[in-house]
Amino acid sequence: MSGRRLFRHARILTLAGSAEARRGPAMRELAVIEDGAMVTEGGRIAWVGADADLPTGLVIDDVHELEGRVIMPAFVDSHTHLVWGGDRRDEMQMRLEGADYEAIFAAGGGILSSVARTRALDEDALFEQSAARLARMRRCGTTAFEIKSGYGLDLETELRQLRVARRLGEMQGVRVRTTCLTAHAVPEEARADETARAAFVDRILDEVLPAVAAEQLADFCDVFCDRGAFTVEETRRVLARAAELGIPPRLHANEFGHTGGAKLAAEVGARSADHLLHLDAEERAALREAGVIATLLPGTSLVLAKPFADGRAMVDDGLAVAVATDCNPGSCPMENLGLVLALACHGCRLLPAEAICAVTHNAAVSLDLADERGRLEPGLAADFLELDTDDERDLVYHAGSPFLRRVWAAGSLVPR
Amino acid sequence: MSGRRLFRHARILTLAGSAEARRGPAMRELAVIEDGAMVTEGGRIAWVGADADLPTGLVIDDVHELEGRVIMPAFVDSHTHLVWGGDRRDEMQMRLEGADYEAIFAAGGGILSSVARTRALDEDALFEQSAARLARMRRCGTTAFEIKSGYGLDLETELRQLRVARRLGEMQGVRVRTTCLTAHAVPEEARADETARAAFVDRILDEVLPAVAAEQLADFCDVFCDRGAFTVEETRRVLARAAELGIPPRLHANEFGHTGGAKLAAEVGARSADHLLHLDAEERAALREAGVIATLLPGTSLVLAKPFADGRAMVDDGLAVAVATDCNPGSCPMENLGLVLALACHGCRLLPAEAICAVTHNAAVSLDLADERGRLEPGLAADFLELDTDDERDLVYHAGSPFLRRVWAAGSLVPR
Repeated sequence: MSGRRLFRHARILTLAGSAEARRGPAMRELAVIEDGAMVTEGGRIAWVGADADLPTGLVIDDVHELEGRVIMPAFVDSHTHLVWGGDRRDEMQMRLEGADYEAIFAAGGGILSSVARTRALDEDALFEQSAARLARMRRCGTTAFEIKSGYGLDLETELRQLRVARRLGEMQGVRVRTTCLTAHAVPEEARADETARAAFVDRILDEVLPAVAAEQLADFCDVFCDRGAFTVEETRRVLARAAELGIPPRLHANEFGHTGGAKLAAEVGARSADHLLHLDAEERAALREAGVIATLLPGTSLVLAKPFADGRAMVDDGLAVAVATDCNPGSCPMENLGLVLALACHGCRLLPAEAICAVTHNAAVSLDLADERGRLEPGLAADFLELDTDDERDLVYHAGSPFLRRVWAAGSLVPR
Repeated sequence: MSGRRLFRHARILTLAGSAEARRGPAMRELAVIEDGAMVTEGGRIAWVGADADLPTGLVIDDVHELEGRVIMPAFVDSHTHLVWGGDRRDEMQMRLEGADYEAIFAAGGGILSSVARTRALDEDALFEQSAARLARMRRCGTTAFEIKSGYGLDLETELRQLRVARRLGEMQGVRVRTTCLTAHAVPEEARADETARAAFVDRILDEVLPAVAAEQLADFCDVFCDRGAFTVEETRRVLARAAELGIPPRLHANEFGHTGGAKLAAEVGARSADHLLHLDAEERAALREAGVIATLLPGTSLVLAKPFADGRAMVDDGLAVAVATDCNPGSCPMENLGLVLALACHGCRLLPAEAICAVTHNAAVSLDLADERGRLEPGLAADFLELDTDDERDLVYHAGSPFLRRVWAAGSLVPR
């Protein structure tokens, strides 16, 4: 047994040879090999090239004839909140019936209801609920995940969420990057007055972040910097403290307005600025110059009936764009990144090739995973998708149709 | 071998005991049996009830334990154009890049490009391309289909499209209703002047509809009654001729404005008025009084970046609402009605239960199929879905996630 698998006669979207982040029109260059072949071994890609150039004499255990079908990198979901307790299906129902946020909040809904339900679960229960979601996401083609905390808002629960995220990343064929988002919302107990609020932010700086760093639980630090959440000044303090502790920034920015988040992301050199429903030419330029990846979350626009972010303008202005699910219990419980890819086209006006780059290579770059994910090149993880078509645009054209034939993670089939 | 299958311990959404069309808030009443059981035999439902009431002494070949999971009627797609030739992926790409309709038309795109490609295919080739789409739609849970002509626009091709639709309906576990939509667009050869246009409409009356009726190829007659398509007066003439030939009406109406289509649908007692992006209270009342089913096609709004139809207002005003894919090569090649159900909630503001009724019972009523589809009652077809959840709202909450466990058509499993 060589442990080698060979995939033959495929249209391979390698995304090879890319710059650190594909920007602007370069996002469209998928570096396609027509009639390509790929060899995997020990969970990694061993060889990729034209079928005609396949090395002779290779001992292969397992040959797959693709008959012209597409092979592409597995999805990388660079913005999720997938570790949470309970669900908010009742709240969705209220919203569809026309209830406004105040009414939902009064009925016990909103983000703080997820905080209460998450605090109530022990680590194993939280793991179990989260692993069920992750399993569905894997079946939809995602094998690498960013996972944020932020439904604890107290030290103990934040640590528990991040530990669960780390445990999910220990599963076979699952890659996880964790993000401390303890500045996700101001919790009930800190809403009394400005003093209580300031004390909450101080505790993030003095207790939560140091404890998270001591246990090496977070690869990134994120803040919900927007109207109704945290101010630019509060965000700057949190991210500065994280940087002292060696934790690089990413940011929820400009979801509700031109509220300074995008400019701050550029100022601090965040890996990613996410949402960006409101983004003018000056803000786009700032993100481009700072090399910040602009992350679109079009599922959230759909669920909340908001306008879609203008992805077309971002690409045309030379930004590197990623697309993610935002999977969370309230504003977007969507798990299928392949569907969100289609929304990024129909809603945010990306081209199919740009959206494919956005959910693979660019997402991997934003997570510091470009050396192992998001492209099909020798040495990278054997995480890839077989499509049931010879034209990857079918993922967008027939959005939601079953074109995902098989999902491979670390060289093994993900069960359907 | 009794040929009997038993499904036990399921949450069964029967939709039983419903009025001819569920209207307004009555759409929410799914007639659920908690801890229910269902027996199928010979492709039909033999028994449905509480598991505790299961008749004793039944000889059963095959027992399925559902463990609380949902069983519901299979989807009925009441508005598709699924018999067409070729694809328009290039046109989609142009649209995403910002090209307007004129530019697309000049580049050979638009509906007439599908006409050219459909005319170019013989019956077997047209069947093969259409059957591939239908197979994907079945995997997504749809077992009954309305299929329109309208990419021929000449006698021969219209007949060929309808014959292909009939052939699709002869496949095991597939139910088809056909609709003659020869008044879908004015073809190239009739665009010279008003005389040529009038001659085209005359030919529909004098040649196409009689030939379609003689071969019994159409269960319904539809007209694209809107700005840029056919006028109210032309539509009235076509539908009147169809009625003389015994073919009942349905209508594309009010997609581009308050263009008279909805009122005409009420006037002629159409089975269904479809699109309805522009519909005021008076028009809603007219449809309600005439018993016309309002059919939402939210996939088209998504793809064309148009506003969603206001399904909430329709239900609140007492209309019976259906939801369909509009599956067609240009404005919406979506095939997954379960996903469109979710769009009808997030976009058109239906509640999950209303949307479920809209893609099952109400769709069946609009196709004169309520005596055999759309509910789970003894004597009806054993066409149903097993969900991988005990809460059907997950179809909307986790839109696009793999909650469809198995699809049954005429009592047999649809291959995945």
